Amino acid sequence: MLHAVIMAGGAGTRFWPSSRVARPKQLLDLASEQTMIQATVQRLHGLVPPERIWVLTNRILVEPIAEQLPQLPPAAIIGEPCKRDTAPCIALASVLIARQDPDAVMVVTPADQVIGPVERFQQTIAFAVELAREQPERIVTFGIKPSYPAETFGYIERGEPIPPPAGGGRDALSAFAVRKFREKPSAQVAQQYLDAGRYYWNSGIFVWRPATIMAALERFEPDMCGHIATIADAVGSDDYPAVLDREFAAIQGKSIDYAVMEKYDPVVVVEADFAWDDVGSWQSLARTHGADADGNTIIGRHVGLRTSGSIVRTDARHLVVTLGVQDLIVVHTPDATLVANKRDEESIRQVVTWLKEHGWNEYL
Amino acid sequence: MLHAVIMAGGAGTRFWPSSRVARPKQLLDLASEQTMIQATVQRLHGLVPPERIWVLTNRILVEPIAEQLPQLPPAAIIGEPCKRDTAPCIALASVLIARQDPDAVMVVTPADQVIGPVERFQQTIAFAVELAREQPERIVTFGIKPSYPAETFGYIERGEPIPPPAGGGRDALSAFAVRKFREKPSAQVAQQYLDAGRYYWNSGIFVWRPATIMAALERFEPDMCGHIATIADAVGSDDYPAVLDREFAAIQGKSIDYAVMEKYDPVVVVEADFAWDDVGSWQSLARTHGADADGNTIIGRHVGLRTSGSIVRTDARHLVVTLGVQDLIVVHTPDATLVANKRDEESIRQVVTWLKEHGWNEYL
Repeated sequence: MLHAVIMAGGAGTRFWPSSRVARPKQLLDLASEQTMIQATVQRLHGLVPPERIWVLTNRILVEPIAEQLPQLPPAAIIGEPCKRDTAPCIALASVLIARQDPDAVMVVTPADQVIGPVERFQQTIAFAVELAREQPERIVTFGIKPSYPAETFGYIERGEPIPPPAGGGRDALSAFAVRKFREKPSAQVAQQYLDAGRYYWNSGIFVWRPATIMAALERFEPDMCGHIATIADAVGSDDYPAVLDREFAAIQGKSIDYAVMEKYDPVVVVEADFAWDDVGSWQSLARTHGADADGNTIIGRHVGLRTSGSIVRTDARHLVVTLGVQDLIVVHTPDATLVANKRDEESIRQVVTWLKEHGWNEYL
Repeated sequence: MLHAVIMAGGAGTRFWPSSRVARPKQLLDLASEQTMIQATVQRLHGLVPPERIWVLTNRILVEPIAEQLPQLPPAAIIGEPCKRDTAPCIALASVLIARQDPDAVMVVTPADQVIGPVERFQQTIAFAVELAREQPERIVTFGIKPSYPAETFGYIERGEPIPPPAGGGRDALSAFAVRKFREKPSAQVAQQYLDAGRYYWNSGIFVWRPATIMAALERFEPDMCGHIATIADAVGSDDYPAVLDREFAAIQGKSIDYAVMEKYDPVVVVEADFAWDDVGSWQSLARTHGADADGNTIIGRHVGLRTSGSIVRTDARHLVVTLGVQDLIVVHTPDATLVANKRDEESIRQVVTWLKEHGWNEYL
């Protein structure tokens, strides 16, 4: 059966001041009326029932996530005691699923992407599931056709086409062998990727059998798998919290791309033609919400005179007025307001660091 | 005896969002711990006792001003039913004072200036009072030596020196006949005034005998004086509120400069060497509060990275973060935030107009 694993451990510091330690990006309604994690679960509706959806997150987020997702079994929301990147998270989820359902296939997705339409997303996942069932050793990834020379994504270079699964070719979906995973490129290289036509953005969504990814991790990361096995064995026992704390902390953090993808074969990339946005920064709101004739994206109460190219977000009834400004990001929250040059957006992380260093924890 | 009249009817729309209809500039602590009108009364301490201080203001501000100035007799705070500029305000105050104290001298001052040190201010006023007592027909004004070619002030051109009052020459103060009042100049003309050395900024502070200014007004504005006399006659009667409403509304609004100063003789200008600021806009906070090494003036909780030439004001514990911005004005209040280019500051009035026109009265 198909299970879903939602990775929801991100800190989302680029979305400060809306994003806070106890309420990061995936718990915010940045892109729609729903929070991003609610939209992620909603997107799986009809494809994966709630009782087969797993959420892995930072321990302090277990409770707020459970509040946002009351339809999920409480035990399905697993709190990691510390940050160890995606590979240990995926390993733990895979072991837990495999113990319940040895023949499972799983889809792994971040909690903070904007994807649509849902129907096309589900067709694409179903196509990948067939590919994974057809050849159980396959790892399936999803490649987004680049629409601009993005420097902020990893890329997947495709190789030879893969024949569609039996009875396939449906829905005009196609798959390729992966030639190579590529790190975030320079502007120049990103332009070359765009021009070449055989490079996709790495969506961070995967489909595989838990047994397959576990075998890969056993091969490339035996030490990590030892700790994960100890944790899995303790599930349900009184020792579990202590074991989880100790063993998870002992793992060396590593991304799944670095731990497995770049070394494994066969990896398949499905060309995903659904709309996709990783909502990586405030500027992405211009994509998800659109912009007016002056290039402004406004969420909330705003009056702008001679204002252009700006993003304004304000809560409730708080009014933001902008006057004679260009290319600003203005974000108002009840206890903190950000006014940033769009070109300086990367530095929002520095602000969070500054606040930590100076003990201004009330704003974190 | 010396009386003081504080003109406190201004709307202060340039200080939106801190300044609101029911709490304009003179009721704000823009320049110090005290509100501007409290500082204005404090500045008179020892020179004019509270029972001889009069405040003329907009009717809706009578109550908040009484709260800020509990030392003043409630009857001394007079609410005008509508805006009619400074001449009717001064006429009404003059009649009321003259009725109590026919030989009075009065100092008239705006409620929203920053002046210091107090001792020098009081010496200068006392000097002017002597000039007004010596020749009762004199109207005395105060000229501020310009420190830059300001386009936002009216100017006073001085003529021949006036001999100091008997026993005078004290405190190194000097006075001149006024040659001409000058309107707000262009940048080029302002520079000529600065270079010429015989032009002063018109401080808007005056000293005269009530009888003198009333005689001048009777001559130049007989119609205005008729309405004012009717109001003064009704003081203390049951009809007073109705009479005030009717008669004040019937007056044609006019500034005292336009009604009297530009036509009258003799007008004297005392060279005022106290520090003076009319706190005309957010940028004046850079003068009253100083600026840091990056040219930023910060009032409240702020973190700035690559921020320069900016003015930030925030209330209570609300944090404002600025990132990669120059020459901005950022003002946070509980229900509205302004982000303006310093060069666009004049347009803050337009915002207030916009809010009025669109019925967003909660932010006015």
